Amino acid sequence: MMFKTARFFVTTFQTRNASNVSFIGLGQMGARMVKNLTSKGQEVKVFDIVPAALNSVANLKGTQVCSSPKDAAKDASIVITMLPTGDIVKDTLLADNGILKGIPKNSLFIDCSTIEPKMAQELSKISKENGVRYIDAPVSGGVTGAEKGTLTFMVGGDKNDLKEAEPVLSKMGAKIFPCGDIGAGQIAKLCNNLILGITMIGTCEAMNLGVKLGLDPKLLTNIVNVSTGRSWSSDTYNPVPGVMPDVPPSNGYEGGFSVPLIAKDLGLAEAAALSCGTPLLLGALAHQIYRALILNGYADKDFAVVYEFLKGQSK
Amino acid sequence: MMFKTARFFVTTFQTRNASNVSFIGLGQMGARMVKNLTSKGQEVKVFDIVPAALNSVANLKGTQVCSSPKDAAKDASIVITMLPTGDIVKDTLLADNGILKGIPKNSLFIDCSTIEPKMAQELSKISKENGVRYIDAPVSGGVTGAEKGTLTFMVGGDKNDLKEAEPVLSKMGAKIFPCGDIGAGQIAKLCNNLILGITMIGTCEAMNLGVKLGLDPKLLTNIVNVSTGRSWSSDTYNPVPGVMPDVPPSNGYEGGFSVPLIAKDLGLAEAAALSCGTPLLLGALAHQIYRALILNGYADKDFAVVYEFLKGQSK
Amino acid sequence: MMFKTARFFVTTFQTRNASNVSFIGLGQMGARMVKNLTSKGQEVKVFDIVPAALNSVANLKGTQVCSSPKDAAKDASIVITMLPTGDIVKDTLLADNGILKGIPKNSLFIDCSTIEPKMAQELSKISKENGVRYIDAPVSGGVTGAEKGTLTFMVGGDKNDLKEAEPVLSKMGAKIFPCGDIGAGQIAKLCNNLILGITMIGTCEAMNLGVKLGLDPKLLTNIVNVSTGRSWSSDTYNPVPGVMPDVPPSNGYEGGFSVPLIAKDLGLAEAAALSCGTPLLLGALAHQIYRALILNGYADKDFAVVYEFLKGQSK
Amino acid sequence: MMFKTARFFVTTFQTRNASNVSFIGLGQMGARMVKNLTSKGQEVKVFDIVPAALNSVANLKGTQVCSSPKDAAKDASIVITMLPTGDIVKDTLLADNGILKGIPKNSLFIDCSTIEPKMAQELSKISKENGVRYIDAPVSGGVTGAEKGTLTFMVGGDKNDLKEAEPVLSKMGAKIFPCGDIGAGQIAKLCNNLILGITMIGTCEAMNLGVKLGLDPKLLTNIVNVSTGRSWSSDTYNPVPGVMPDVPPSNGYEGGFSVPLIAKDLGLAEAAALSCGTPLLLGALAHQIYRALILNGYADKDFAVVYEFLKGQSK
Repeated sequence: MMFKTARFFVTTFQTRNASNVSFIGLGQMGARMVKNLTSKGQEVKVFDIVPAALNSVANLKGTQVCSSPKDAAKDASIVITMLPTGDIVKDTLLADNGILKGIPKNSLFIDCSTIEPKMAQELSKISKENGVRYIDAPVSGGVTGAEKGTLTFMVGGDKNDLKEAEPVLSKMGAKIFPCGDIGAGQIAKLCNNLILGITMIGTCEAMNLGVKLGLDPKLLTNIVNVSTGRSWSSDTYNPVPGVMPDVPPSNGYEGGFSVPLIAKDLGLAEAAALSCGTPLLLGALAHQIYRALILNGYADKDFAVVYEFLKGQSK
Repeated sequence: MMFKTARFFVTTFQTRNASNVSFIGLGQMGARMVKNLTSKGQEVKVFDIVPAALNSVANLKGTQVCSSPKDAAKDASIVITMLPTGDIVKDTLLADNGILKGIPKNSLFIDCSTIEPKMAQELSKISKENGVRYIDAPVSGGVTGAEKGTLTFMVGGDKNDLKEAEPVLSKMGAKIFPCGDIGAGQIAKLCNNLILGITMIGTCEAMNLGVKLGLDPKLLTNIVNVSTGRSWSSDTYNPVPGVMPDVPPSNGYEGGFSVPLIAKDLGLAEAAALSCGTPLLLGALAHQIYRALILNGYADKDFAVVYEFLKGQSK
Repeated sequence: MMFKTARFFVTTFQTRNASNVSFIGLGQMGARMVKNLTSKGQEVKVFDIVPAALNSVANLKGTQVCSSPKDAAKDASIVITMLPTGDIVKDTLLADNGILKGIPKNSLFIDCSTIEPKMAQELSKISKENGVRYIDAPVSGGVTGAEKGTLTFMVGGDKNDLKEAEPVLSKMGAKIFPCGDIGAGQIAKLCNNLILGITMIGTCEAMNLGVKLGLDPKLLTNIVNVSTGRSWSSDTYNPVPGVMPDVPPSNGYEGGFSVPLIAKDLGLAEAAALSCGTPLLLGALAHQIYRALILNGYADKDFAVVYEFLKGQSK
Repeated sequence: MMFKTARFFVTTFQTRNASNVSFIGLGQMGARMVKNLTSKGQEVKVFDIVPAALNSVANLKGTQVCSSPKDAAKDASIVITMLPTGDIVKDTLLADNGILKGIPKNSLFIDCSTIEPKMAQELSKISKENGVRYIDAPVSGGVTGAEKGTLTFMVGGDKNDLKEAEPVLSKMGAKIFPCGDIGAGQIAKLCNNLILGITMIGTCEAMNLGVKLGLDPKLLTNIVNVSTGRSWSSDTYNPVPGVMPDVPPSNGYEGGFSVPLIAKDLGLAEAAALSCGTPLLLGALAHQIYRALILNGYADKDFAVVYEFLKGQSK
């Protein structure tokens, strides 16, 4: 079987890096993912439309800077994208100097962006029509996971394609979940972030309430973390400044997962819910709360800044 | 130090059971708590206004059935209440045959009910005026925690009073958190359950969305549980039937934490929030969702039944 | 019949002002209501705990300044209160220098404050126990209605008591609705303001959406006002600055019905809903939106300022 | 002026019916609109993909049944569509037997469907590329307005095109609002229905609250209708059965404006809001409430049935 062969080869160092890998999209996430690839011996052809982003990885040993997606995709056996929206991925695929103009037949296109499940299916169809294999592989773990190479990949698509992707993905992440058909990775990602966006606001509301009523936020956190209110938002990324070191809330809500990004994911979740007639009561409200924050001075802050909004401020 | 001495004494069997303990309120929680007290050697005078509830513990070795709160409180050094609402606790304290008519001066009154923080302060004041010491000690852990003796107690009140309570509380629970002044136990409890009520709905919304879009609920649960959407509602009490054994959602949403009880706690959280001008956006909506469920056929179900409501049904 | 006699007498000038009327609570509403009473020939004994408020009506022909509620109530056949909360009304009734200490037996106490229906029932009971008749008569129409004497009174209580109140109320308002038993006036008021609080936000959301998408707000208003989106919030008090002259939105959201006041009324509506197990989904959210605004710089603005919040601002 | 001339001509019978008019989409709305056209002397070529719908107008004097959109559009100077979604309109335009295959150059395409403003712009672009003029002209007034010929048309597009459309539109409606560029009619429609969807739920919540607390719904309606809670939802389409005759709530919530249709419009409003970063807090929640109702047995009822849901039911 091709799979076994592939598996076999990937265990040899030579072969593991025999893949010609291209990476397009070098933002907060992409640049860190490339750093992990190259530090683990994988050579990568890179491209980003923003020169500063491209320069940020230009000096890494093992990167080769390209002039376009087409240029980057030339001779690639695997092309990875990490881009802001589905429309941008589609443009990057179809443009005159886009991926499809350069990528060899039968190569594997791995989209790690978070996009609409339907768009993933459309991208898969376009790829197939052009003789290219496609899987969707969005990530969770954020900038920290990208930095440390501990991302979780949620993958939709053919199992053999995933097996081929594994050696490369595993250099950037700690866990890989096959989720089902094309688009299933995106669905899993959106469901997870839907919970996240809601639970973070809920945790902010409760922490704010406790503090306003006189509780010490660290004490309340300790209680919640061994009780039924426990979640990643309370025990790993607590939104109250000073409760945990080394998280954005303790650093002026700088860095981290910005309000517009969680708003984007909740918007995608709502669109997916609409497509199947599924109601999202808290999800819809959470989405709009983040949108209201964007317009009221919190557009560049970590999403846990909901805590500050609830606490209030004088204007 | 007085504390150390106290700790020392509680380790000797004699002293641990030297307290005359009374327990009033023998519902789903109270009866199980009494069972733990008696099985660990503590004799308990018991009362409940409902004969069937009283009978449910009458045959336990170590219980002594009483005819009224006054009767139960006579000669008690510690009186514990586990009752549905603050008003009922107040009545049980003040009635003609109430606790205050029987309890000796300087005894300790421990209220384990979940009630308004302000009512806790009022009960403390009334107790003090009658020469009785008071602490609030609401619990988390539900019926299972009560059964297994693994409840968490969140305690507001004087530290020395808490130390006196510890030997008794530790027979019913695994963790005791001193939270601050009178009422602080209630505040911590409400904050925790506020997160719980929100996160459960959020988890239901996302699980339902994933399933409707074709994901396997166990797979989605596995992903969420190692990702940023992880919470007690996903990893310990998953709302989708069949994902976890031995939780109410896998048993027709029977037993567990009923919709009216979480609605009650969210109502208390909202009242507390109102008292300090703190907004609860998702909390207020979650509260009303549970209230709508009560009126639409889910009044006697576990609160995770939100999943069923979102999934929909023909009428 | 006593009623007919009463009606007869009230048509003669002599008798209409034969009532000894007292008015307690001279804020934005109360002072304007007193002005209408006196300008129509009714002498009024007045009191407010705030000296500036008391002074604001001291020079009106027909007012007699008093030193306490007790002092004002002495010899009164009708005592009117217009106060911020139910607790304050209760204090004003029961205090050492309170109304009950001065008011003659069988006089009529008319509370025009907006308070909890349950508190109205409690005040009625207290009044009755002290030989005083009570009706609740909250108003709608706001500061403008108070100024112009066009308030609507929603009255709960005995019909004969209402008939006795009519000659006085009709000097301050244009419409009087008997709503049912004690508290029914409050219930009607809260139901109306519940709709108001929701509809205003809905109108703000839609007007903001239309303007952001390029529609002229006056044109959109014209369309809505002849369509199914028409409401008092669009055709009488349009929230977009400049669409209507002479409303607070066209005056920097100054004056008018402040955010904390609508928040208070929605809080009372929620408490009433809780008492009868009725869900308020949009009402609960609207309530919390106004509460969030209070904490984010809009505490002293007219409630239509939701439009500004939705429009957004740089911080 | 061209406008005056046009107006002049339309007043002569000859000219008014000189247009060759086609109408595609003969559902609840379309069939009634065609009936008004023909009863006022306008001959109409008609098509619907559902034979029963087509048959429903086949016997009207003045209709000519066609076999496809292409067939209907042949020789037409004006083609009107009234279809469920933007995608269906697009298909009807572009299909092999679609409108564009039959419509003469320079004819006017009037889309009366409620669709995404962006889709209206896309349809306009496609039309232009094929030498056809386009305006969007969605309606308000519902089935009753369609029946009586009193619809309101909200029109986006060129003013001269609107003038040409006026004689035809005025046979079906009472008011025509020019709203601005292509898509502006859709935007106005969505803004209006956004308010409607919110205000109706708010009115249901308040009416339900009042009734549960003992008020007579007719009395409460009378109060609200002269107060600040007044709206089309209270004074024209009151949601409580029996308050008003001849509205769907008094007829078992049959007929009228179905839950899925208001949900669809709120979904379009949300998509439009997302496109310009505008938050819709109550709008998003209202949308999801209707979606939850669809799944819980109310899919075929008038949207005022929210009242029933809030009132509750045993399952």
